[in-house]
Amino acid sequence: MTKRILLAAVAALALPLPALAQTHDAAALRDAALRDDVAWEVTEGLTTEVGQRLAATEAEARARAWAVKKLTALGFKNVHIETYKMPVWVRGEETAEVLGASAQKLAIAALGNSGSTGSRGIEAEVAFFPTLADLQAAPAEAVKGKIVFVSHAMTPTQDGSQYGAFGGARRAGPNLAATKGAAAILIRSIGTDHHRNPHTGVTNWAEGVKPIAAAALSLPDAEQLERLLKRGPVRLKLLVTPQFKGEAESGNVIADVPGSDPNAGIVLIGGHLDSWDLGTGAIDDASGVAITTAAAKRIMDAGQPRRTIRVVWFGAEEVGGFGGEAYAKAHAGERHVFASESDFGADRVWKFETNLPESAKPIGDRLATALAPLGISRGRGTAGGGTDVGPVLRSGVAGIDLDQSGLRYFDYHHTPDDTLDKIDPEQLRQNVAAWTALLAIVANAPEDIGKVTPAGH
Amino acid sequence: MTKRILLAAVAALALPLPALAQTHDAAALRDAALRDDVAWEVTEGLTTEVGQRLAATEAEARARAWAVKKLTALGFKNVHIETYKMPVWVRGEETAEVLGASAQKLAIAALGNSGSTGSRGIEAEVAFFPTLADLQAAPAEAVKGKIVFVSHAMTPTQDGSQYGAFGGARRAGPNLAATKGAAAILIRSIGTDHHRNPHTGVTNWAEGVKPIAAAALSLPDAEQLERLLKRGPVRLKLLVTPQFKGEAESGNVIADVPGSDPNAGIVLIGGHLDSWDLGTGAIDDASGVAITTAAAKRIMDAGQPRRTIRVVWFGAEEVGGFGGEAYAKAHAGERHVFASESDFGADRVWKFETNLPESAKPIGDRLATALAPLGISRGRGTAGGGTDVGPVLRSGVAGIDLDQSGLRYFDYHHTPDDTLDKIDPEQLRQNVAAWTALLAIVANAPEDIGKVTPAGH
Repeated sequence: MTKRILLAAVAALALPLPALAQTHDAAALRDAALRDDVAWEVTEGLTTEVGQRLAATEAEARARAWAVKKLTALGFKNVHIETYKMPVWVRGEETAEVLGASAQKLAIAALGNSGSTGSRGIEAEVAFFPTLADLQAAPAEAVKGKIVFVSHAMTPTQDGSQYGAFGGARRAGPNLAATKGAAAILIRSIGTDHHRNPHTGVTNWAEGVKPIAAAALSLPDAEQLERLLKRGPVRLKLLVTPQFKGEAESGNVIADVPGSDPNAGIVLIGGHLDSWDLGTGAIDDASGVAITTAAAKRIMDAGQPRRTIRVVWFGAEEVGGFGGEAYAKAHAGERHVFASESDFGADRVWKFETNLPESAKPIGDRLATALAPLGISRGRGTAGGGTDVGPVLRSGVAGIDLDQSGLRYFDYHHTPDDTLDKIDPEQLRQNVAAWTALLAIVANAPEDIGKVTPAGH
Repeated sequence: MTKRILLAAVAALALPLPALAQTHDAAALRDAALRDDVAWEVTEGLTTEVGQRLAATEAEARARAWAVKKLTALGFKNVHIETYKMPVWVRGEETAEVLGASAQKLAIAALGNSGSTGSRGIEAEVAFFPTLADLQAAPAEAVKGKIVFVSHAMTPTQDGSQYGAFGGARRAGPNLAATKGAAAILIRSIGTDHHRNPHTGVTNWAEGVKPIAAAALSLPDAEQLERLLKRGPVRLKLLVTPQFKGEAESGNVIADVPGSDPNAGIVLIGGHLDSWDLGTGAIDDASGVAITTAAAKRIMDAGQPRRTIRVVWFGAEEVGGFGGEAYAKAHAGERHVFASESDFGADRVWKFETNLPESAKPIGDRLATALAPLGISRGRGTAGGGTDVGPVLRSGVAGIDLDQSGLRYFDYHHTPDDTLDKIDPEQLRQNVAAWTALLAIVANAPEDIGKVTPAGH
């Protein structure tokens, strides 16, 4: 490792001159971005004036109109909406009640794509599984007709990796419970807080599996239910009445900073405009579109970059990545050379990872130099983007991930608590500074940025 | 000040021997209490097996039955319920919605004793007042027919004093708004957190004033509404449908540790059994009854004290102190010489204050010595108790307050978030240790504890 670090340092000192000869001085632009107000204005405006923005609803359409107005006012070019159709799911009533001697209400929220209990609800005994693996191992007779309750032990991590490790209870638990004949399923919210605000999020059903009611208990309520189960059997009354509403329109909002060299390819950045319906989607993901937009504006205002920077406010990320898929399909004929997204809140970036072709490796070294003063170091992994730019990256486009701290992200993620007050303006500015440095370097890089092998392939 | 501290130290060194000659060694009992499990068991059991315990409801009655069983099992004597009648108020539906271009829902909870909007709700423009004083100063025509919104700027304080300073918006705001002709009133929750969980709490109406709908916005929602109001007028649809249900039964649960000297008077301690309906009342006030009960049991198990220790789990504190009043009235004929309650959560006790007659001043000095190792120092104020033992104290009975840290108390107070996970078992044990030392000293004090001038009189 020592040798590798030393080489990186030498490479950083030997910066190729063309990068510094641009109108875009990455270090100066980075430092100016630490006084940014645009990202806050976007985050504050979108979360206040629109509020929640569930995919393919009237609220998301209002958000697109808001975005067009804002991006136009900020001076971006070619600002427009590209629509697509997608299935819509909307929340209904949702209550859970312990029956019997310890009668009490529990706080729940339906998972996206949850089935319905019907308007009269259901009553059934709880079948408890401490982990998803326990549910997997259970015989169907232990589950049939029961309200399955799956727990987990997710903890906060800086890299957010336990969302992947423990999120299976939400992603796969409902389908599994349904195939075993469960009446419904409750999961311990995939989160790390202790507030009575359940974490929603999408679940999916295999072809031919009839959706059952699937909801998340807030973490205090999940622990309460576990305590009650330690004392003996628990019967619940559950009412969950969401609806599938058929197909409706969603859309991406696109804005460009045109580059001087049309052959150099497009640098694609952005975040997602839609949010879950419970909060106002401040960390998920108003701040993501705000950070990337503010950084792109800083480059635009400093002079024309070599490459076109395209900012996309993707639609319908939360409910299945429809916006990212639609963008990749619609723009498959264009030459994208780089793609990156911001979709992990607005706490400090602490690490970056790249997936650059051999010819463009010096970009990573220059970025390491530019980001170091912000407290950002190079990670050992390979950049893979997220749901929105994933489809573009998977076509062999290069990318860099700017990784934010996830230590408090899953306290608020997908809950009613995802609101503006969770955004720390100083950390938001550090994000803008990191993205500004990234764009100054990537959009102006003299190297050709060719195809790469996608991460995980 | 130096002189006063020095004298106190000398007094502490010159402990009167009789106190140490008891079977109750305050220091040893205190240290043993740092390994207490009883307080946790009571807190966990009551909040899990009963859950919320709104005054004069079926849930509070279940809690009384639970209390009798628990206090009896713990070995207390004379365990019984004393009932009284009181007016009952119960929550109904409660929703608030911004109308127009920024249509969105706001999280609210009705205040105790709130009036109703009727089942169809009301729509009206918001009249904003940054403070209660602004509402007070406003002419009736600025309020008439409007939904009044009163804010405040409460911050966390260790002594919790800003609850008094800023809580007027809840206590007096609704009555004031009603007298000026408001259609309804929303207040910024009297709290210090940033979660979407509104803080309820009781409000009161002057004779002849017709209750209007009165609800608290969660703090993020109050800030959201303020941001919207900065952009222009806001119309809201408000639905708040609580009901006054007439008179019903509530009650106090009483348990004794009989003393050896019937002439030495009763030492009255306790907390309240009822809770608000939104959470499970862990910090308010399962932990209070648990702490005082666990301490009394430690004294009981160590041998008979000189004075009878009476533990009361008061009913109906939250909604107007009915239990405390009923107890004082029913037991006016008994000689109480000391009263103290625990009703401020379960975080560390950091300060104590006394109101002792001249003859019993050495009790305070001995207590200072016994509490110092727990990180507790003597405050400069005068003990005044709380809602439950207040009526007894006001008859001239001596008291000592063990003051807990309030730095996070108003993050959870009166919200759905008042649940078991907010109790830190180690801090809970420190409370039991402090109360055990207090009881060892007070219940066995050889001094007569005579009448005092009540604090604030």
